[in-house]
Amino acid sequence: MLDSADVLSRFRIALPTWGFSPMGTRFGTFRMGDEAADVFGRIDACAEVQASLGMTPGLAMHFPWDSVPDWAGLARYVRDRGLRVEAVNPNTFEDQIYRLGSVAHPQAEVRAKAQEHLLECVEIQRRLEAPYLSLWFADGTNYPGQGDFRRRHAAMVEVLLPVARALPSGSVMLLEYKPFEPAFYHTDIADWGAAILTAQEVGPQARVIVDLGHHLPGANVEYTVAMLQHTGRLGGFHLNNRKYADDDLISGSIDPYGLFLIFRELVKGERLYGRRLESISYALDQSANVEAKGPALILSTMAACEALAKAVLVDEKELEEAEQQGDVIRSQSILREAFLTDVRPTIAAFRRSQGWPEDPLQHYLAQRRKG
Amino acid sequence: MLDSADVLSRFRIALPTWGFSPMGTRFGTFRMGDEAADVFGRIDACAEVQASLGMTPGLAMHFPWDSVPDWAGLARYVRDRGLRVEAVNPNTFEDQIYRLGSVAHPQAEVRAKAQEHLLECVEIQRRLEAPYLSLWFADGTNYPGQGDFRRRHAAMVEVLLPVARALPSGSVMLLEYKPFEPAFYHTDIADWGAAILTAQEVGPQARVIVDLGHHLPGANVEYTVAMLQHTGRLGGFHLNNRKYADDDLISGSIDPYGLFLIFRELVKGERLYGRRLESISYALDQSANVEAKGPALILSTMAACEALAKAVLVDEKELEEAEQQGDVIRSQSILREAFLTDVRPTIAAFRRSQGWPEDPLQHYLAQRRKG
Amino acid sequence: MLDSADVLSRFRIALPTWGFSPMGTRFGTFRMGDEAADVFGRIDACAEVQASLGMTPGLAMHFPWDSVPDWAGLARYVRDRGLRVEAVNPNTFEDQIYRLGSVAHPQAEVRAKAQEHLLECVEIQRRLEAPYLSLWFADGTNYPGQGDFRRRHAAMVEVLLPVARALPSGSVMLLEYKPFEPAFYHTDIADWGAAILTAQEVGPQARVIVDLGHHLPGANVEYTVAMLQHTGRLGGFHLNNRKYADDDLISGSIDPYGLFLIFRELVKGERLYGRRLESISYALDQSANVEAKGPALILSTMAACEALAKAVLVDEKELEEAEQQGDVIRSQSILREAFLTDVRPTIAAFRRSQGWPEDPLQHYLAQRRKG
Amino acid sequence: MLDSADVLSRFRIALPTWGFSPMGTRFGTFRMGDEAADVFGRIDACAEVQASLGMTPGLAMHFPWDSVPDWAGLARYVRDRGLRVEAVNPNTFEDQIYRLGSVAHPQAEVRAKAQEHLLECVEIQRRLEAPYLSLWFADGTNYPGQGDFRRRHAAMVEVLLPVARALPSGSVMLLEYKPFEPAFYHTDIADWGAAILTAQEVGPQARVIVDLGHHLPGANVEYTVAMLQHTGRLGGFHLNNRKYADDDLISGSIDPYGLFLIFRELVKGERLYGRRLESISYALDQSANVEAKGPALILSTMAACEALAKAVLVDEKELEEAEQQGDVIRSQSILREAFLTDVRPTIAAFRRSQGWPEDPLQHYLAQRRKG
Repeated sequence: MLDSADVLSRFRIALPTWGFSPMGTRFGTFRMGDEAADVFGRIDACAEVQASLGMTPGLAMHFPWDSVPDWAGLARYVRDRGLRVEAVNPNTFEDQIYRLGSVAHPQAEVRAKAQEHLLECVEIQRRLEAPYLSLWFADGTNYPGQGDFRRRHAAMVEVLLPVARALPSGSVMLLEYKPFEPAFYHTDIADWGAAILTAQEVGPQARVIVDLGHHLPGANVEYTVAMLQHTGRLGGFHLNNRKYADDDLISGSIDPYGLFLIFRELVKGERLYGRRLESISYALDQSANVEAKGPALILSTMAACEALAKAVLVDEKELEEAEQQGDVIRSQSILREAFLTDVRPTIAAFRRSQGWPEDPLQHYLAQRRKG
Repeated sequence: MLDSADVLSRFRIALPTWGFSPMGTRFGTFRMGDEAADVFGRIDACAEVQASLGMTPGLAMHFPWDSVPDWAGLARYVRDRGLRVEAVNPNTFEDQIYRLGSVAHPQAEVRAKAQEHLLECVEIQRRLEAPYLSLWFADGTNYPGQGDFRRRHAAMVEVLLPVARALPSGSVMLLEYKPFEPAFYHTDIADWGAAILTAQEVGPQARVIVDLGHHLPGANVEYTVAMLQHTGRLGGFHLNNRKYADDDLISGSIDPYGLFLIFRELVKGERLYGRRLESISYALDQSANVEAKGPALILSTMAACEALAKAVLVDEKELEEAEQQGDVIRSQSILREAFLTDVRPTIAAFRRSQGWPEDPLQHYLAQRRKG
Repeated sequence: MLDSADVLSRFRIALPTWGFSPMGTRFGTFRMGDEAADVFGRIDACAEVQASLGMTPGLAMHFPWDSVPDWAGLARYVRDRGLRVEAVNPNTFEDQIYRLGSVAHPQAEVRAKAQEHLLECVEIQRRLEAPYLSLWFADGTNYPGQGDFRRRHAAMVEVLLPVARALPSGSVMLLEYKPFEPAFYHTDIADWGAAILTAQEVGPQARVIVDLGHHLPGANVEYTVAMLQHTGRLGGFHLNNRKYADDDLISGSIDPYGLFLIFRELVKGERLYGRRLESISYALDQSANVEAKGPALILSTMAACEALAKAVLVDEKELEEAEQQGDVIRSQSILREAFLTDVRPTIAAFRRSQGWPEDPLQHYLAQRRKG
Repeated sequence: MLDSADVLSRFRIALPTWGFSPMGTRFGTFRMGDEAADVFGRIDACAEVQASLGMTPGLAMHFPWDSVPDWAGLARYVRDRGLRVEAVNPNTFEDQIYRLGSVAHPQAEVRAKAQEHLLECVEIQRRLEAPYLSLWFADGTNYPGQGDFRRRHAAMVEVLLPVARALPSGSVMLLEYKPFEPAFYHTDIADWGAAILTAQEVGPQARVIVDLGHHLPGANVEYTVAMLQHTGRLGGFHLNNRKYADDDLISGSIDPYGLFLIFRELVKGERLYGRRLESISYALDQSANVEAKGPALILSTMAACEALAKAVLVDEKELEEAEQQGDVIRSQSILREAFLTDVRPTIAAFRRSQGWPEDPLQHYLAQRRKG
């Protein structure tokens, strides 16, 4: 039987190096004073967060933002801090040539340039021994008529096929969907339906990554998670929270019950369907527009732990009975009771057992004050 | 080259017999005085609409609402009025046993009952020579924990497999998705992603039907249509319009440009990808809560014709050039100009050429006044 | 200083008699076997719930559904069960003449009929000594052009003015807003802006009632509550929960953190702005489409208590300090910690102190089994 | 009686100088090569657009972006190009001190700084003889607990009161609402309800400006416009279009029927309620992220003209009759017929009569090619 300590001991979340770059909105970027100057500073900043959290040894890195001349040196720098690289994230949205798309661009030369960068990132993945190539494309259109959906889709798949084949053996290509932004009429991988179709066409290495903020209003995200699990193509998560659009807020800050329901699907996926919790990737992807960066990452991580620890409390057997009997009141009560339970003591006890600081936020703030 | 007359001559929309039943909301149903008493009255009412429209010879029928003891007599009744049955729509949502679902119900005996009704409907389909079995399930849950998504999905596929195998040769099973209502937490086929997965599991006879009102706010429906076309699984449409939820308003009454963009994908699907416009099913599915029923069906049909006739005006070659050149202004202008064109004269001329009443609404109202 | 026991001791929620009528959606109504046959049965059913809850002595009643020939007898029937009538809810949406509206109908005779019913309800309010006349109008249009917004608004205010003047002294007219359903293009009181304007025009007796399900996706309901408080026109709540539209689910079943944030505004309203928690009306308004009715009301009530008890834990002084210092992390942590606290022991202790059953759901179910 | 030529001759739209600054999203900004280097370049660029349009002599200017040492010189520069300044738009969202707000900031010194800038802008307004001070505040919070809604609201009103009093006589303060972005939990003026309350508290000079993209999904914007007209506080529009969030696309590019319905309220406001079309302010406010800037402004302007010219075609008398008779089909048909009419010839004829280029987009592109 799964218990909290077992599950918590297997749960790891990757920290994004870009979490220590300046972040903001189209209306401006506020400097909090905790931005790092370069990739080494960003790695140091993640190491500092990991020193307080203990459960975040992985890094999600962004290229070319984190590119260096000496890849072996970078790998050593990461390793020396007790960290590892989880995901390599290419960037095909900033360069001026990507104005109308990258992998789905109407012009072959732009697609070729995007493919070249993706293949470079596969090479980086190999050098940094990262198990995941995590792909998000800003590709889409702003106006009806600007591009043909099917032509763009076919072009994208054609670009991705050789990239998938080039992946290091055993590694995974994550495909991320998003309904809008920065494209405001259509996005080439707009929803999980499009993502799963694309993954099917690209090949067995392709999985779907769920960014919690990439859904239309009302979307039942936990249902999407379950359906993706069912296909065997659920590859991971970008954790954050939203109220309106892709707000990239701290996980659990707006809808902690929703986060709980998602983690319950993951725990259930292990209990009922044999998918180990740790067989997919978890990374934070948030935008600390007005708050301190390290603490924001810590709050998100703790919110995920709380959701997970509560999810473990759900008695699935009892729930299945209630479902069989059509007892809607009882099934709802079972979930409620699990969620109402205060799991902070459980998590604190687990953290002590691992030798990790019991209160990571206070530990981090204290270190910074000393620092 | 496609021209308006060619396209219009191949475009048929099926009328729903339930369009002449009392319709309303959970807050009440207003009688407009144009409700029909039984299936024969409903067929007569559809025939009256078709006498004015000319392009709506098909019927979408709902069972057991339209069930009779004498199926041959019913088939003859339809045929004698110059009509044909396009789609058979089973009902697995009204009976008290379906409180917690039908094909995805947790209990095997309820699923068996639902399957039995579906198989009966296949038999009806055979007797009425209807090319489509059109399936919409109200199945879902109202609360987290009430049911397991994956267990329910697997149960549903198991129920549908023998139904698909039982279909008359050459006929099509349409699967309809809907995000919510009447289930308010999750629906078992919630979106096109779930529909396409279900269709893949059920077999080659299964296609996806798009009800224009069954989307979350902001969803790009024309993109969904194009993606479904790409899979070869686009099976048809339930036409209506929405502003908020599944409002089931007259087609084109809220967003005529959106309707145009959808029909443009269909015309393009024929022009660029060889999918004949008439290779899928079109049916009206609307709820005339406060207005006269026949006229509402006529307005919807005409709105679809206008959208189609405007879509034909789009010069796809020119658009592809603009796309290649990255000329967003030009591509947008091309679509705008097509949409701004007044196609009423074109449609009127086409209707005269077919010997159909030029203004179907006035014709219908005049007939009613005489009648 | 406010403490949980003090606040809980002043918190009362009214039960809706219509909560024991058959409830469903436009697709059908499932009988749960716990429907009451008439107004006396519905009052008995509410009394049974109150026997378990202790904090729900008030009734929200609906007319003409709850109309009787002998009003004094009805008042006595209520009183004899230890109950009281909190709100009188007129019904101007079911009668066939209300197809195109009631108080905002284009025709004067329909408006007059609606006004007559409202004035009858004021009389009922007087007879039943109910402090609130709670008005929700289904008025609106389904299509652009169907009605003129301003003409309809002016007509509505004209109808309401004499009703407001006729109210028993000291009593309150509650105006409820709703964005859509059953009207699907516009609703005459669509949002809190329209409600506050209408209240300002109708007079000092008019307040705004917030139904938690009557908002567009993403609306910040707690902000609306605070703004209404600021105007002095916040009159009460219809408690329920939603994921998509006006889903009328059990309170706190989808978004318990949102419920907490709303109650925090109410507690803060008392702490910082002197508005006593009990100076407004709270009523349940939910639709138990697939679950047992009494238990659903009990779960909603308990969810509200939990939200309230957690809200009391928020240290507003500390929060104000964090706000002043611009410490977003600290302010968020303060709210989180309050919400994460398990208040079930506090509530249980309070309930014991009142002589109320500690676990109202188990008590209710046990009574029913005996009964 | 209103006719198209009369109405078109009175309709003016202001061009935003910031329309020629680099524009983009938080993911990047693409240079189109048509950005202007400074305020004089931006004015020249607007003059070039106006040379093609003829109906856009007004400028909406943004400060400090458009600030200069020599205000008289700036005024002359504008005047010499046949332009005038319509609106002064202050900026209280970019400076680092505005991280947590400006006029609603918790700290008095930040509010004082914001007020100082607003008063400077009033002075600029006086120097440039601009009739409108157009205020949009990015103020809001990203997390529950970060700020107290009522305290922030009160602070904002306190800041605005002296600004309103300082306004040049006869000029208008426009208050803009927006549900989210860049604040992702709450915005201090989130909707028209909050805007109208703020305007009521700030005084008679304050009006509400409607940005078409600043609404939650499904909001009925034309209803909001009518309600604002009813209060006498409708002050103007920021024209653009949206599909998801505040997408700032070309007007009419996504929902031309919606634009028509808004202009119909304005025409009706003049016909039935005596509010002259030109008594409020119209300005473009869009973000040409992937397209050429001048052409995008031209397409928006023409879309507004088309909407207006179609709105004039609606026979309000006939509509009122249909409304009175409860004829929903007829009322809808009247609107449809107006919208289906091709008004391009009417507009072209009107433009010729004014001596303006008949096809402003072609004229503009030809000038640029020459230029």
